[in-house]
Amino acid sequence: MISLRPVLSVLGFLYVGLATAMLIPAIVDVIAKNADWQAFVFSALITGLFGLLLSLAMGGSLSKGLDTRQTFILTTLAWTTLPAFGAVPFLWLGVGYADAVFEAVSGFTTTGSTVLSGLDGLPPGLLVWRSIMQWMGGVGIVVMAIVLLPFLGIGGMQLFQSENSDRSQKIVSRSVELIRLLGLAYVFLTVLCIIAFLATGMELFDAFNHALTTIATGGYSTHDLSFGYFDNLAAGWVAVFFMIIGAMPFVLIIQALRGQPLLLWRDPQVRALITFLVIVSLGLTVYLGVHMHFPFPEALLKATFNVVSVVTGTGYAYGDYTQWGPPVVGLALLLKFVGGCTGSTTGGIKVFRFLVFFGTVRAHLRRMVRPSRVMSEEYGGTRLTPELSFSVLAFLVVYLGSVGMITLALSFFDLDLLTAISAAATSVGNVGPGLGPIIGPSGNFAPLPDGAKWLLSFAMLLGRLELFTVLVLLDPDFWSR
Amino acid sequence: MISLRPVLSVLGFLYVGLATAMLIPAIVDVIAKNADWQAFVFSALITGLFGLLLSLAMGGSLSKGLDTRQTFILTTLAWTTLPAFGAVPFLWLGVGYADAVFEAVSGFTTTGSTVLSGLDGLPPGLLVWRSIMQWMGGVGIVVMAIVLLPFLGIGGMQLFQSENSDRSQKIVSRSVELIRLLGLAYVFLTVLCIIAFLATGMELFDAFNHALTTIATGGYSTHDLSFGYFDNLAAGWVAVFFMIIGAMPFVLIIQALRGQPLLLWRDPQVRALITFLVIVSLGLTVYLGVHMHFPFPEALLKATFNVVSVVTGTGYAYGDYTQWGPPVVGLALLLKFVGGCTGSTTGGIKVFRFLVFFGTVRAHLRRMVRPSRVMSEEYGGTRLTPELSFSVLAFLVVYLGSVGMITLALSFFDLDLLTAISAAATSVGNVGPGLGPIIGPSGNFAPLPDGAKWLLSFAMLLGRLELFTVLVLLDPDFWSR
Repeated sequence: MISLRPVLSVLGFLYVGLATAMLIPAIVDVIAKNADWQAFVFSALITGLFGLLLSLAMGGSLSKGLDTRQTFILTTLAWTTLPAFGAVPFLWLGVGYADAVFEAVSGFTTTGSTVLSGLDGLPPGLLVWRSIMQWMGGVGIVVMAIVLLPFLGIGGMQLFQSENSDRSQKIVSRSVELIRLLGLAYVFLTVLCIIAFLATGMELFDAFNHALTTIATGGYSTHDLSFGYFDNLAAGWVAVFFMIIGAMPFVLIIQALRGQPLLLWRDPQVRALITFLVIVSLGLTVYLGVHMHFPFPEALLKATFNVVSVVTGTGYAYGDYTQWGPPVVGLALLLKFVGGCTGSTTGGIKVFRFLVFFGTVRAHLRRMVRPSRVMSEEYGGTRLTPELSFSVLAFLVVYLGSVGMITLALSFFDLDLLTAISAAATSVGNVGPGLGPIIGPSGNFAPLPDGAKWLLSFAMLLGRLELFTVLVLLDPDFWSR
Repeated sequence: MISLRPVLSVLGFLYVGLATAMLIPAIVDVIAKNADWQAFVFSALITGLFGLLLSLAMGGSLSKGLDTRQTFILTTLAWTTLPAFGAVPFLWLGVGYADAVFEAVSGFTTTGSTVLSGLDGLPPGLLVWRSIMQWMGGVGIVVMAIVLLPFLGIGGMQLFQSENSDRSQKIVSRSVELIRLLGLAYVFLTVLCIIAFLATGMELFDAFNHALTTIATGGYSTHDLSFGYFDNLAAGWVAVFFMIIGAMPFVLIIQALRGQPLLLWRDPQVRALITFLVIVSLGLTVYLGVHMHFPFPEALLKATFNVVSVVTGTGYAYGDYTQWGPPVVGLALLLKFVGGCTGSTTGGIKVFRFLVFFGTVRAHLRRMVRPSRVMSEEYGGTRLTPELSFSVLAFLVVYLGSVGMITLALSFFDLDLLTAISAAATSVGNVGPGLGPIIGPSGNFAPLPDGAKWLLSFAMLLGRLELFTVLVLLDPDFWSR
């Protein structure tokens, strides 16, 4: 029998934190003289009370730390129950269950798919709450990716084990210092982003909301037109810069802020990601210039912005890129799979897995031709074990297989293939908008049937938890002994 | 420097064999008093002369057998140059280069995608030549899968190494007996299939052509409506039976014909494939009964026929299943990836790779939870080495990645996503028709731009050669030393 006491104890603390965060939109609505403040105060009360009672009931049981199985359970429970509480304000305001949960899951997982339209006219508290969910989800995923996942060995992330993620019983307590630094860096970058947006002429409310969802590579906007609303090249480039920052490994960002920026550029993931973004953006710029006759500065920004937005899984749109022809639709679909660096706020497959994949498959092909040759593969100076390469490949297959299965399941809700496959890819990759007339960058997920919304909520969590964290729980073997 | 002499010597023999086969459509056209016989005689002459000169020039150089690299080169050259010669009759008859090569590659790879329409009115020689290409391609892939690929260790096929595919220098000479038995079994089953079709009331010409393309799981028909033309339940069930036979491992079929049919059922691939086909067909039957109101016998046949046709990569259609709603389109797309058993005439990923994948990933997930536990995975009584599991996973990733890349490349020819992705999946999987209004089961590939046809011809070869056979040749390292 696995003891859930320490797991529930941690969850209790998290709920109390969530309740505190709910007071921010309440304050915003009070200032704006909007009656919605009651929804947030009510939600904060029940969330906070529940969390308080839970941590009191389980109190002190964390002293022994968490073992592997408890960590798996905590990770999954945190990412499923926090959005459930986060959905309460939406329910109070009359949004249906499927929509409320979808919107909250999309928020916490930093996906950015939305079922709400007419964003420009929504009360400010609601908009702020969406942004805050993404901002919290962003820092949550970084903590998880740095502290928990390497320790669990999810999909090759054991590569990033460090003194902060060893396999001893004390991961939680030992990581406090790292989490503190992370939090500081995250707040600092968010403030920097707000100031930069203000400098481009954005209003404070928009600058605040978009800074929160940019650094979290979340993508919730306060406007139906997303970034296209501002029609402001400078604001676009600021967003490009901070989306890329959000896709960097935060451990290296902390070191950069402490005066070692070169470490960032020496990281194989960072180099590969930047190179990839530059090449694809320039290619698309040429295409937009030649086929769509955009003037160069507009072509360069729209290409770079949307490529960076999709690859980092932010999900902002600058113009409806699905109108730019089949090649752009095909490109957008494939880019949904890429993702950023591990230990960042991004979802998707992530760059290091591509690097490990290309390296080990090349070695494999060479062994086929000359079986006697001994080859060893490295990643950033670390020798790759066969188990690690296997782990990465298994992740890739399970990832692509999951997108396929979710596509099939969605087609049973009578969605056309473009809608189904792009919804599946955008959810598992935590990107945001889909493709096609319904869920594309100028549409939203509201018209989908409720069943599809539940399925996509599951898909967003599956992707955010890097698949394996959820899958191990489905194996009866996990629960035995 | 790699010596190409023995490779060219084998190719010479193959060209002479191909030239002989070209005389069959010539004879058919002579009997039908159709002037097209000249195209086939001309093609037979140049193919035969070229082959004869090549084997004379390289004569006797095969005595030392082939080494690994020569085997890779032979395999790829055989599958690219035989279709090139096979396209000559089409060229003579006025078909353009891209179309002629596409049709011949689709034939030899047993894909069954076609650029020809108005099949019902085409001269008999041409129709027979299409069927014969598929029939030869079918036996060719079985020989390759049993004799060459396990020896090369392609995508986990080292599992199927036997005394017939060891790593010594003598694979070619040692395998002669097995190839002879294979040929006999293949001819025997083809004749059986002709007789069975005749018994259902099919005319001899149709029975002959469809038997050739059924046992080869090829799918070229003599009618635009494919099997729907016959509207004959009995003929449909005969085709279902022989498509499944074509998807079985031929080594076990030989043993079944020699009086050991139980070995077939004991094979893990066979059990898994049959179970899968039964479950999916029954599910689709229920769907067709409930949603399309087909009477039960029609629903059962149309469901089973089309599921078996797509999974085995045959590509016949019985009714236009793309009209049966989004769930069927989604299902058809995913089924294109499955494939039959290894050592059969089918393409696609193939069942044993799914079995290895599920087994090793489950073991991997369990090791994540309890790292200290030692687990070993088996497949049909053979212990799986880490290299073998890796090989299978690498194949899966490269397979899915190739479909993605080809989809993107096709979208640059301004094809919509459904057309592009289904064309990519159907080509790499050697299935046949795509999905959507253009290339779906009631359309054909003729309207695609020539560039797309060349790309799809490459994709069909890539799939037929199980990807890695082609990819190793692209690594400069292959050609060094």
